[in-house]
Amino acid sequence: MDLTIKTRPLTAQGFARFGQVLAAEGHPDKIINAGLCGRWHDVASLDFGADTHGRCGISVFLAEPRDLPYDCALLERHPEGSQAFIPMHANPFLVIVAPDEHGIPGVPQAFLTNGAQGVNLARGIWHGVLTPLAAPGLFAVIDRIGPTPNLQEYALPGPFRVVAG
Amino acid sequence: MDLTIKTRPLTAQGFARFGQVLAAEGHPDKIINAGLCGRWHDVASLDFGADTHGRCGISVFLAEPRDLPYDCALLERHPEGSQAFIPMHANPFLVIVAPDEHGIPGVPQAFLTNGAQGVNLARGIWHGVLTPLAAPGLFAVIDRIGPTPNLQEYALPGPFRVVAG
Repeated sequence: MDLTIKTRPLTAQGFARFGQVLAAEGHPDKIINAGLCGRWHDVASLDFGADTHGRCGISVFLAEPRDLPYDCALLERHPEGSQAFIPMHANPFLVIVAPDEHGIPGVPQAFLTNGAQGVNLARGIWHGVLTPLAAPGLFAVIDRIGPTPNLQEYALPGPFRVVAG
Repeated sequence: MDLTIKTRPLTAQGFARFGQVLAAEGHPDKIINAGLCGRWHDVASLDFGADTHGRCGISVFLAEPRDLPYDCALLERHPEGSQAFIPMHANPFLVIVAPDEHGIPGVPQAFLTNGAQGVNLARGIWHGVLTPLAAPGLFAVIDRIGPTPNLQEYALPGPFRVVAG
């Protein structure tokens, strides 16, 4: 294993180059429902490209839980749209992303959510597949629904290892 | 209290006239990620109206938990868009809806989720405010982001009571 990376806590600032953290962090933008509910308004930069054939949709994913250390040998990206992962549980999950370097993934980074965060990956961001760390690995996914291909996969020459930070 | 209604378990069939249940129920539409993830594809009928000023957005709500019995005296609806509630936890929550009868709410119904379900309310459906039954009442909400008013409230002549079914 040539490369080992440590997880870092997911923060809006640390994740900004890859997308947005979806969470009730800081002050709400609005208080609604007679004071009983805070609304953090419009927290994701949804982007389904200029292609008018794409639209926003909600899907549900149920993924097998993984363990740390986790060996990752494949990254993927969606050139036509952003993709948000909203956990339907309060368990932390692993978010692996990488910057683009001339069309292939650069050095990957691994973030660990705090159990009250989702993420929205910006359009075209390299990322690992969905990696819950506990069962059930249930997520709502808000991404592009459309008729054209929207997946690029990149098989790494060898896996990198993600360890608890 | 003139009207008392009992909660019913949330099912796709029972909820169909009001919207969609967002859940990993039945067989997935696709298996992805080398067999490790099921995808229930495009499960919500998102509808942001013909008004081109509206678009889909993700917000985060944090609501105070309520208890059963729960007295409800106000219903609301969003004439310009559907509204999806995705729990970011595994606790059941209460979903109160009512059919429309000539512009005002008809007899309400109360559904209780099973801890692994969200809902998408169809555009214009009368509903109660977000009512988690446990803390933290954290939800992702996928609804219409737009510049025009999108809320009608209806104060009932008196409250109705929701009790555990």
